[in-house]
Formats: sequence, C-alpha cells, structure tokens
Amino acid sequence: MSESRNEGSSQAAKADSNTQTPSNWKGAHPKLRDQLKKKKKSSKKVFKILQEKMLKLQHVVTDQFLQWTNQQMQCLSLGDQQCTRASRNQEKKMGHLLSQIVNLVWSNTVRKLKFQVPLPCSDSRCAIKAGHQALSSWQTGQPRPRLGDLEAAFASCTLSKRGTDIYEFYHLSFQSYDAYQTDKYHKDENPLGYINLSTIENKLCLDLVTARLTQSDMNCLDEAQLQYSDWKGQPFLREELASFLTHYCKAPTPLDPENVVVLNNCSSIFSSLAMVLCDPGDALLIPTPCYSSFPFSSYFYSKVELVPVYLESQVTGTDSYSFQLTVDKLKLALTQAKKEAKNVKGIVLINPQNPLSGVYTQLSLQKYLVFAKKHKLHVIVDENYMLSVFEPSATFQSVLSIKDLPDPNMIHIIWDTSKDFGISGFRLGVLYTHNKEVASAMKVFGYYHGVSDIAQYKLWRLLQDKEWINKVYLPKNHSRLRKAYSYVMKILEDLKIPFCNCGSGLFVWINLKAYLSPCTFEQEQILYQRFQDNKLLISSGQSYKCIEPGWFCLVFAENHLQLQVGMDRFCHVLAEHKQGITEEQEQTTGT
Amino acid sequence: MSESRNEGSSQAAKADSNTQTPSNWKGAHPKLRDQLKKKKKSSKKVFKILQEKMLKLQHVVTDQFLQWTNQQMQCLSLGDQQCTRASRNQEKKMGHLLSQIVNLVWSNTVRKLKFQVPLPCSDSRCAIKAGHQALSSWQTGQPRPRLGDLEAAFASCTLSKRGTDIYEFYHLSFQSYDAYQTDKYHKDENPLGYINLSTIENKLCLDLVTARLTQSDMNCLDEAQLQYSDWKGQPFLREELASFLTHYCKAPTPLDPENVVVLNNCSSIFSSLAMVLCDPGDALLIPTPCYSSFPFSSYFYSKVELVPVYLESQVTGTDSYSFQLTVDKLKLALTQAKKEAKNVKGIVLINPQNPLSGVYTQLSLQKYLVFAKKHKLHVIVDENYMLSVFEPSATFQSVLSIKDLPDPNMIHIIWDTSKDFGISGFRLGVLYTHNKEVASAMKVFGYYHGVSDIAQYKLWRLLQDKEWINKVYLPKNHSRLRKAYSYVMKILEDLKIPFCNCGSGLFVWINLKAYLSPCTFEQEQILYQRFQDNKLLISSGQSYKCIEPGWFCLVFAENHLQLQVGMDRFCHVLAEHKQGITEEQEQTTGT
Repeated sequence: MSESRNEGSSQAAKADSNTQTPSNWKGAHPKLRDQLKKKKKSSKKVFKILQEKMLKLQHVVTDQFLQWTNQQMQCLSLGDQQCTRASRNQEKKMGHLLSQIVNLVWSNTVRKLKFQVPLPCSDSRCAIKAGHQALSSWQTGQPRPRLGDLEAAFASCTLSKRGTDIYEFYHLSFQSYDAYQTDKYHKDENPLGYINLSTIENKLCLDLVTARLTQSDMNCLDEAQLQYSDWKGQPFLREELASFLTHYCKAPTPLDPENVVVLNNCSSIFSSLAMVLCDPGDALLIPTPCYSSFPFSSYFYSKVELVPVYLESQVTGTDSYSFQLTVDKLKLALTQAKKEAKNVKGIVLINPQNPLSGVYTQLSLQKYLVFAKKHKLHVIVDENYMLSVFEPSATFQSVLSIKDLPDPNMIHIIWDTSKDFGISGFRLGVLYTHNKEVASAMKVFGYYHGVSDIAQYKLWRLLQDKEWINKVYLPKNHSRLRKAYSYVMKILEDLKIPFCNCGSGLFVWINLKAYLSPCTFEQEQILYQRFQDNKLLISSGQSYKCIEPGWFCLVFAENHLQLQVGMDRFCHVLAEHKQGITEEQEQTTGT
Repeated sequence: MSESRNEGSSQAAKADSNTQTPSNWKGAHPKLRDQLKKKKKSSKKVFKILQEKMLKLQHVVTDQFLQWTNQQMQCLSLGDQQCTRASRNQEKKMGHLLSQIVNLVWSNTVRKLKFQVPLPCSDSRCAIKAGHQALSSWQTGQPRPRLGDLEAAFASCTLSKRGTDIYEFYHLSFQSYDAYQTDKYHKDENPLGYINLSTIENKLCLDLVTARLTQSDMNCLDEAQLQYSDWKGQPFLREELASFLTHYCKAPTPLDPENVVVLNNCSSIFSSLAMVLCDPGDALLIPTPCYSSFPFSSYFYSKVELVPVYLESQVTGTDSYSFQLTVDKLKLALTQAKKEAKNVKGIVLINPQNPLSGVYTQLSLQKYLVFAKKHKLHVIVDENYMLSVFEPSATFQSVLSIKDLPDPNMIHIIWDTSKDFGISGFRLGVLYTHNKEVASAMKVFGYYHGVSDIAQYKLWRLLQDKEWINKVYLPKNHSRLRKAYSYVMKILEDLKIPFCNCGSGLFVWINLKAYLSPCTFEQEQILYQRFQDNKLLISSGQSYKCIEPGWFCLVFAENHLQLQVGMDRFCHVLAEHKQGITEEQEQTTGT
C-alpha cells in the first residue's frame, strides 16, 4: 500500500462544466426553480428575489392575521392546544422567510463591499469563523459581527452581552439545521422539504441497529442504572470499551478501563480535554481543512485557539499528494505561532481524516508523534471513523496500535459511537488516554456532560455482541457505504468535478472552483446559499477552515432516495448557477 | 396554613447530649471503632490515628509487593485481565488510606493554625469553598489552596495550570463520593462499606420506577431516536413536559413547548442560564444555606459569582421563624454587593427549599418577584422537589401558578426529574422560561449537554402515564418519604438534636452545635471527618454556604436497611465525639 494512495488523492479530471445542464433535476423546489428562472437575465437578480420574498412574506403575514381572526371564533370548539400549534407553524414559516431574506441581503451587501468584512458562515453544523468571532468578543470587547439591523432589531435587553453573542451565534450557525429539523424531506408528505447532506451522520444502517437495539436483552434495567454512578462513565461500559478498543485498534497490550472516560459526545470530550491540557489563551495546532466543530468546541468553554496548519490542494515541494500533512508544515506553523507569542500545547489529528477521508500511514503517524515529543506537545487523535473504512485498499492504523509510542503520556484518543454505529442520538463519546492524571481530571466533566445510564447500558450490550458487529453490522455497513459513495462518485465524474475520497468516512470533499467566478469565499458563500435556497444542505469549505475557496463537503451516508433527490438538486443548482455566471460575463463583456 | 409553618421552623428542643451514649451502634466499622476507642484518652489522638494508618499503609504496601511477586508467576495461568484488576483494587485501597491520612494531617494542621486559612471542604458532592477558590485562581493568579505537600507530589507536569486546579478540585470535592462508589455498603457482601446520606437521591421508589420502565411500551425505538434532533430537546418530550408542568404547577394558561429546554441535568441548566443571563464577573443573589452544587455550577464555566443572602437560625427583627428570607435581607445583600461594585443580574430561589425543606407561600413569592422587578433582576427558581412535598400540611406553590407575574420575561424555572422521580441516572433536567430569547439562546447548550434520545423517549412515556403517576407513584412515594422522615425524626428527637424539616424534600437540616467545642467551622470539619471515618457520608453546613458552623444535611430518602445502619453510625460517632470532647475539657481544666 503506497502512502500517497492512502492519504488523500484527488480523483477525476478538472471540471469543464460550462455546457453542463443536467436534465434530471426533478427534486428541486418548483417554486424556487421558477424564481431562479425568472432572475436569470438580470444582474440585479438578488434584489429581485428579495422583492419576491418580501411579497411572499406579506402574504404570509396577511394569512396570519386572517387566521387569528378565524381562530378567535374557532378556538372554543378546536381547543387552545391546536390553535397554538397552528399559530406556531405560521410563526416558523415567517421566521424562515425572514432568515432567507436576511441571508440574501447579507450576500449582496458583502458583494458590494468587495469582501472587506469577514463573511459569516451559515453552515448547518457549526460556523467556525462567525462563531469564533462572535464568541471571542466576550474577552476582547471588540465589536461583534452582526447579520444586520434586521437581526439587531430582534436583539434582547434581557440577555447579557455574552448571552446575545450566543443567541446570534446560534442563529448564524444552526439556522439551516433548524430549518431542516422542522421541514425534512419526505417522499409523500413533504417532497419539497430539506435534504441534509451536511450533518455527518450515517443513516445507511439505521434498520440494522434498530433491530439489534430492540432485542430482548436490551430492555434490562437494574436499579443501579437509575442512580448517580461513576462520573467517568459506568465501570462495566468502560471495561467493555477498553476491551473493544484493544481489539479493533489492535493495541499491543490490553487497554486499561481506568483510562477510559465517557462523556456525551466527542465535542464535549474535545472541549474538556482542551480545558485540562491548556490554559485560556493557549493554542493547539490542527491541519486544515478540519472537522468544523472543533475550532468552536475548543473555544466555547475552554478559550483555546486552534492554529491552522494549512494544507493545499496543489502538490508542491516534497508533497506526494494533495492536502498532505508533513512535519515541515507542522514545524512552520509552530514557528509562526511562537513568533506571534502563542503558547502551543499540542496537535490535533483526525484519522481517518475529516473531511479529506484519507488515513495516515504508521510511518507518517510516527513522524508526527516524534515531532510532538521533541516539542513537548500533546497529541489529540480523533479516530471517529475508524470502523468506517469501507474500501479494502485503505488500511487504517490506530495510534493505539503503535508499539513504542514516543511519549504515551501525551497522547489522547477520541472515539464517538455516533459515526461508526450511526447512533448520534445516543450522545456518547469516548476518550482513551494513557495519562492517568488526564483521565482523573476529566472526571469532573461527567458532572456536566454525563450520559444517561440507559444509553450506557445499551451500548455495553451492543459492543459485547462481537458476532453481530463482525458478521452483520460491519460487512453490511461497509458495502452500503461503498455503494452510496459509488453513486455519488459517478455523478461527480460525469460533471467532471474533482473530489477526494480514499475509501473511508461518510463524506466526499469536492472541488467546485469551476463554478465560482471569481473564485472567492464570497462566491463560495453565494453558491452555498443557492444550495440552501433549493432545500439542499451541504457544507462549505470555509466552515472547515479550508484556505482555498471553492471546496465543499458532501455527506453520502444517506438513504438512497434522499441521496438521489439531494444529488438531483445539487446538479440542478450547479447548472443554474453556471448559466447565471455565463450570462453575467456575457453582459459585462457586451457579447 | 400559616406562613411560618411552611417556611422552615426548627423542631425539637436544644440538645443536651453530654450523657448521650447510644447503645445501638452495631453498624460502625469495627476496626475503626477499635482505633477510635484506643485514642480517647490522649490529646494527641489525631496523630495517634495517623501513626496507625501509616502502619496499616505499610502492611498494604508490603502485601502489594508480595502480590506482585506472586502475580508474575500466576499471570500465565490467570490471564492478564484478572491480575490487572486485583492490582487496581490494591491501588484503590492504598489511595483511600493515603487520602484519609492527608485529611487527618490537614485537620490537625488547621487546628494548630487556629483557623487562619480557609478550610477546604470535602463534602461528597461539591465543595463550594475549596472548589470556588481553586477555580477562581484561573483568573486571579492567586496561590491555589492545596491539601499539602503529599498532594503536590502527585501533581502533574502534563496538565495545564487550569487542568491541575480541576484535578485538585475533583480530588477535594468528590473524594468521599468516589470512595463510596467503589466501597458501597451491602448487608452480606460488604457490611463495612459506605452509607451515603449525603448525595441527594430518592432511593425509596426504585422498585416502582424500575417496574414501570420495563413495561413493554418503553422498549419502542424508531430510527429518529438514533439521529441528531432538536438541540432544545425532542419536540414530543417538550410538548409533554409543557403539558405536565401546566398540570402539576397549576399554570393559569397552557405552557408553551417552545419555551421548554431539556439538558442533561439541572446543574447544566443552571450553568447555561448563568452564561446567557450574565457576563463573566456578574453576580446572582442566593439565600444561604443553599444547594451546594449551584455556587460551583455558576462559576465553573460561566464565571458568575453567587452572592449569599445569609439567613440565620436565630429569629430576630421582623422574622417569624428560623432562616426566613425577607425582602429586607435581599435589599441589604443587593446594596452591599453594589457597594462592592458587583453587577447583580438576578436572584436564585429554591422552592421547596434545599436544604431547609420549607416552601414559600404565594405571598412571599410575590414580594420577592416585585423586589426583583423593581431592581430589574432575573429570577431563577429551582423547583426540583415540587412533587416531593410529602406532608399534607405543606402546600407548594409553583411560581408558574401565579396569575399576574410582575415580570414574566425575567422568570426562569428549573425542574429536574432526578429528585421527584428518583431517576438521577437519566441525566435529565428541564428549563421553563417565559422568555423566548432565553429559550433560543439556550439551544446551543444542547450541543454540549444533550440527553440521549432513548432517555428522552422513556421519560416521555412515563410522564404520559398520569394514571400511574397519580395513583401509584406519588401516593407511595409520599408515604415512603413520610415514613423514612419519621424514623429519622424520632432518633433526632431522642438525641435532642434540633432540626428543620417542613414536610418536603429528601433531607433534614440538623443542628449539631452541641457537639462542637468550640463551635467553629474547624470543629464542624473534624466532626464531618469522623462521620466519614466511620463510613458514613453526610454533608456539612459549610458546603451549603451556611454562615453558622454546626449544621449538617442528612438525606433520609434511602432504603430502610441502609438508613438504619447509617443512623446507627451517626449515633455512634456523636456519642464518641461528645465523650472525646468531654475528656479533653476535663484534661484542660485538670479535673
């Protein structure tokens, strides 16, 4: 197995999609499609949509008032509860339209400003930029980024300054996720609802896991499960997790249950680790693009900065492949951070990588660890996708498998059941650390980020069932991931869109630079917004701290119907967007 | 119902227990009993115990080395796993002995220093003083309180300064709780194990709840439960909670599910509320004695100070009963805080009170709310024990039941299923706020303090079953609470120990001043340590921020056998302690 094949190679040729107009965009929102068609010819298209949306809003508000009048007469017979619900649904519709308008105004303003202010990211999971900035103003007292006066008009006098920041942050970051939650696509009941290919969840094996979790052995309950227990997690679960990780990570000696800490997800673990390993203002290095939640999670409670080790798509210097992490790049980032008087306490690695999906070879890992030891740095390794390596050609090597770790006391591994078993709803993440003091200091976080004992019990039973894991779950999960990936790969290849996937993870990292003109973060944001307007959520590269504009992350571990509709919308948006750009260019050049 | 009866009256006469020597202390640890007997005559008794413990430690260490030698030969046949476990158990024993020694040294040192330094509190749940101090040094850079050099020797060079503080804080605060977790009393298997009458849990109805939770309707699982959902909590649960609170809190109009937020316990809710209502350094007023977790929870993440409104046992001025909260006291505390340039943002009320167990009348509540409105203060009301009012004479009035709230937008109610349903293991707390912005800002905390959907589902089913709640659970729970309370009350009356309980909650607030000579916090800590040495955990008044030394909080919602053994140990410790004091006094006066 060559190192380059494993660690993030770009597939498919460079896109040339000027003439690309997929015919199969039956999944796109018909009303929005009409709107999008109308605005093609005009350079003022954004404002035109705005106008239309304002009209639509006016209708909704009128409807609302009519409904209120009707309700006053009907409520006696219908009951208050139902009226309240109907009224809430109307409110939601209004809120959604308002936020779409705000986003459009924002995009347009930024465009006019020629990108002089940082662009807030409305990625559905976690906006690093906006969130980080909004939250860092708690300390610096700098002016906070705002969506605009419309937003400010909603601001509260009852919340603290910090509370207002959190409120705004939530609005910026989770807005599209909330819209999805209340307006999910359903084949028959809501064919115009959102398709979410942004939130990283494995929805391919929900049937298998549900079947296993409803077997009779899962419903046991002893009284101890109802009481407070060990803040590090139930001892029986930690024992099983130690043995599970020993087996699947191929640890040379049995792992110690006392070094296992269970909290309610990997973000809580990462945030708590940042708290015990770093002081406020300290920094951790992280190769980017990286999992979008980490920069926020290191900052929200712990006030630890993530310093990017920027990786680029272009193969230069001693690189063998795109987005390659080398010790030289780590060294450069560390030197630069020190120059800026940053106190770097560690390195964060994600393996299998998110969003690049490559896996580090043992040789590479060793080099990074030796570098870390030399500079007395902690190494936090997120191995969330260790069981989601679906191509036999990709060989995942856990850091726990390495025999003579350079500095075991400084190495901490995170694993989250959400991804590998598709059970995000369990809210359960795991830390394995070789450092007993770290494990001990992490205990207190169980008080604030503890997991329901019922979930701990069920996971314990699940992990015990090696027969099911090895013979049922893993083979089916891998084959379904492979199938979904192939489906998406085929479409991307047809569209000549370059992308990265190395046979692991639940997502593909795609290059849409050919659809941006000019290729800027501003244009990336506008394209992102187009997807969202067509009820398709995918993540922008900016939310992954990618240094180059034009990249997106698309989750394919979605059931086939949703994936199909999502990819139809994807193709449709790209075709429309491309056409709009071409027309604009023609107008500008007077052709 | 008179106001004074409801809000915390002291029962039983003042103690005169010089001659009190209960004969029924069969539950006390025999080895420790022997040790305690031996040291009676000497004024250097603490050091004598220390010497004995050192000898005991030496034996354990010798055993450990012998065992290691044996293990090296046996491991091949026994398997590594078992050897590791045996070795860990030895380590635990050593750790426990070490910590007992450290505590003794500490008590003695403090005694000699005549209380010049603040005493660290080793309450089993949350040490306010020590915790708060340890944690506040993150910001102030002041020297941190330490247990001593022995502790410092354990300190790590891999943790950050903040991490070391957290590590030390955990050690100080949860040490006895951890000891209890690994060495619980069991009638046959571990009769010398710990009895925990400190952690506030209702263990009287575990049988009823277990039976209900294992009925067939509880094991349903749809795929949605396995995925990410609404960060505020599952909509179906929030809907049910709104209707549940409307009913049991007697709200004049139906409560809105959109104003309900579900996080993984009431401490997480309190911490998050402090974060959105206050900026770092702001303050909240809280009448003390108060629930020991709150001062820590407001500080750990949110850096909000709780300013005590000190209540005293003595009835003075316009007071009608002990520990009475009046608007004058609130005013005084607010004025004083303002003088000290503290930015007070709200008031925290606990109703039914913890640890006083009184319930506020509607008239009192109204007065506090009017005061809060006048000064533009938020009011956070913790109604955790609202369904645990077991005496018909006590009438609980939820703040949600008040028709014309002075300033609804500033009122936020916390309820935790742990206490009223005895299901701490669910890790589920609830916020109801009239303020939509607060509810919205709280959403982001669902990302770090979310609850397993499986637990949310089960709670939903449980709350739906009003027939079971009203006809089975509540009547039995109340009658069992009443019985357990009566049992404890009888013993306290026999010992002539004054105490407070007004027919609600799971605990009794007891006055052991007669057992302290002199009556100082130092002596309170020494008595606390005596209980712990006899494997009985009860909480000291200092951990509840009580201004007067000598008070303790004892949880009676424990099953009868454990409660009996616990109370036997309690009587035994008091008798021994009293005798020791008398002898010491005789020695001093030369009689």
